[in-house]
Amino acid sequence: PKRQRGKIVGFALRLKELGKDDPRKIIHSFKVGLALTLVSLFYYFKPLYEGFGLAAMWAILTVVVVFEFSVGATLGRGLNRMLATLTAGALGIGAHRLATLSGETGEPILVALFVFIIAGIVTFLRFIPQIKARYDYGMLIFILTFCLISVSGYRDEEVIEMGFERLSSIVLGSCASVVVCTFICPVWIGVDLHNQIATNIEKLGIFLEGFGDEYFKISEDGQPINKSSSLQRYKSVLTSGSKEESMANLARWEPCHGKFRFRHPWKEYLKVGNVTRQCAFKIESLNNYLTSEIQSPPEVRNIIKGECTVISSECGKALKELASVIRKMTESSAAELHITNSKAAAEKLKSVIRSSLCKHGDYLEIIQAGAVAS
Amino acid sequence: PKRQRGKIVGFALRLKELGKDDPRKIIHSFKVGLALTLVSLFYYFKPLYEGFGLAAMWAILTVVVVFEFSVGATLGRGLNRMLATLTAGALGIGAHRLATLSGETGEPILVALFVFIIAGIVTFLRFIPQIKARYDYGMLIFILTFCLISVSGYRDEEVIEMGFERLSSIVLGSCASVVVCTFICPVWIGVDLHNQIATNIEKLGIFLEGFGDEYFKISEDGQPINKSSSLQRYKSVLTSGSKEESMANLARWEPCHGKFRFRHPWKEYLKVGNVTRQCAFKIESLNNYLTSEIQSPPEVRNIIKGECTVISSECGKALKELASVIRKMTESSAAELHITNSKAAAEKLKSVIRSSLCKHGDYLEIIQAGAVAS
Repeated sequence: PKRQRGKIVGFALRLKELGKDDPRKIIHSFKVGLALTLVSLFYYFKPLYEGFGLAAMWAILTVVVVFEFSVGATLGRGLNRMLATLTAGALGIGAHRLATLSGETGEPILVALFVFIIAGIVTFLRFIPQIKARYDYGMLIFILTFCLISVSGYRDEEVIEMGFERLSSIVLGSCASVVVCTFICPVWIGVDLHNQIATNIEKLGIFLEGFGDEYFKISEDGQPINKSSSLQRYKSVLTSGSKEESMANLARWEPCHGKFRFRHPWKEYLKVGNVTRQCAFKIESLNNYLTSEIQSPPEVRNIIKGECTVISSECGKALKELASVIRKMTESSAAELHITNSKAAAEKLKSVIRSSLCKHGDYLEIIQAGAVAS
Repeated sequence: PKRQRGKIVGFALRLKELGKDDPRKIIHSFKVGLALTLVSLFYYFKPLYEGFGLAAMWAILTVVVVFEFSVGATLGRGLNRMLATLTAGALGIGAHRLATLSGETGEPILVALFVFIIAGIVTFLRFIPQIKARYDYGMLIFILTFCLISVSGYRDEEVIEMGFERLSSIVLGSCASVVVCTFICPVWIGVDLHNQIATNIEKLGIFLEGFGDEYFKISEDGQPINKSSSLQRYKSVLTSGSKEESMANLARWEPCHGKFRFRHPWKEYLKVGNVTRQCAFKIESLNNYLTSEIQSPPEVRNIIKGECTVISSECGKALKELASVIRKMTESSAAELHITNSKAAAEKLKSVIRSSLCKHGDYLEIIQAGAVAS
């Protein structure tokens, strides 16, 4: 029992950690509870209950499935669900009517055939990357609604009524989700993406600013530094690609908010993110020099020390400047100044040692990346 | 109209491309159609229809939502759905009974409270990374079923009957999906993961094998090579991390198949994948030397040419050997031989130039990575 208690305490601590880490997650949990409670109240008000009937169940289902952490995701799923239900419902009623025309025995065969064909085609369409990115959920709901409507073996008018009930309750559920999600402490995924891009650039800047000092410090000690240094925070940038992409896809659903317009150029963020990642790869290779067991001899280091430190710290400052420019959405020429400084230092370095060291090639490329990122 | 026709033709060509690229996707689409048709037949056989009633709708819904591309994903979703429905149904019936005890007016308030609390807590639990990785879908279904069962304002025995119907039709739908997915041309995500790891290592091997020749060829021409070379295939390895992780999570659901046992050590694949990625980062920095505008002078190159070519081609052979060993799941000592060769060449290189070039540090690390990967 003692060991079990330890486990439970550890679990509770982890939960607390999670909540502290991002309080928006706690708020989100409350919001889901609230939206569900609101929708479930429809069951208890008689006039409403009679209007929706059993279909009110679909409203609850919709809230559970549609309500996501960010506004963009919720809106995307809600719109997908409503549109797909509408089109698939219409198509399903058509298929059902066509099938009933063919008589008692022909009906099940024809319906089965329709279901097979439509489900197969739409499933295949889901593999197309562009559709998968934005309309995957809608495609799923399309198959679902089409099957439900066309298969259910009722009379015509009942099918139409059923389709209408289903549609109206899904609209109700989606709207409830979107309203609660948007108006109570909204989480804009666009803002998250914006901040993440800036933070990533900043991390690289911090690394570069510290790199020069760090590198020439080891040359004096002769010992590689430990790997858990604060400079290593840039590592997360290396693998952030797929996350940024899905965030940009969701952000495209969001309406105008804060400093962002509708149809904000989210794709540009991806480009900046990619350049940042290219830069991170180069920084990774610079980092290898820090942790490498073989270090170049002190005399060589002393020749290049001054310029290299200037280059890397100026690059770092330029990147940090860029990050703050992005964060505040202003324009500034300070970054360009830093880049000019570091380019000048690089030229000097080149003239000092035209001979053997291959390292300044890397530096130059970083400067190029920095220049592109602006 | 001509432009529109061009668009449609382009779309059709893209679909054809997609099908050619991976024929399993076409087969998958047929399988989904088949599973749905099978389940929808339940509506047409009277005895079965009376047994399930309206709840048969849930079976169709289950198939649409549960049927995924790979066996692992389908099994995972199916099990999640069944377990979550079972536990949430039991809990929901309990909550409903508790609420009815408190009389006409107390009932809606109490139910609303239950829904709010349970939905909030479970939504928060979904943020825990370990739960998100494997049980996210189950948590969603848990909230859904709990709300549906506890909210529906029927009498006790009807609620129990409803829960039972729902559960049995969900079991039916899940089983149909799993059976069709597993026994008709199954797609094992474990096999995919296994092959991807091997392919990634192979790509690095191909790069290293060609790198030495390529690098010293430019020293003769003095021109950097073009970037679209076949050596650049390794780039995809840099960003494969999150995909591998989700594949491993899904693979853990799969039963014994082919050469893989149940509880196959999928986590080891992630470790190998990580080492491979580390190695790819180092290769990225080597690649920078190829495309860099500043190249070291020919006299330096000639000193190191022989040994460097041996190191990189031996490393490449070792990695390719490792890839084929993984692919065939056999043991082989050929890779170690290549590593020994390249280590010897590296030692020679070190003794030749103890002075200025910092490049062999990189090589050594690659050899280490290669050794770890075995």
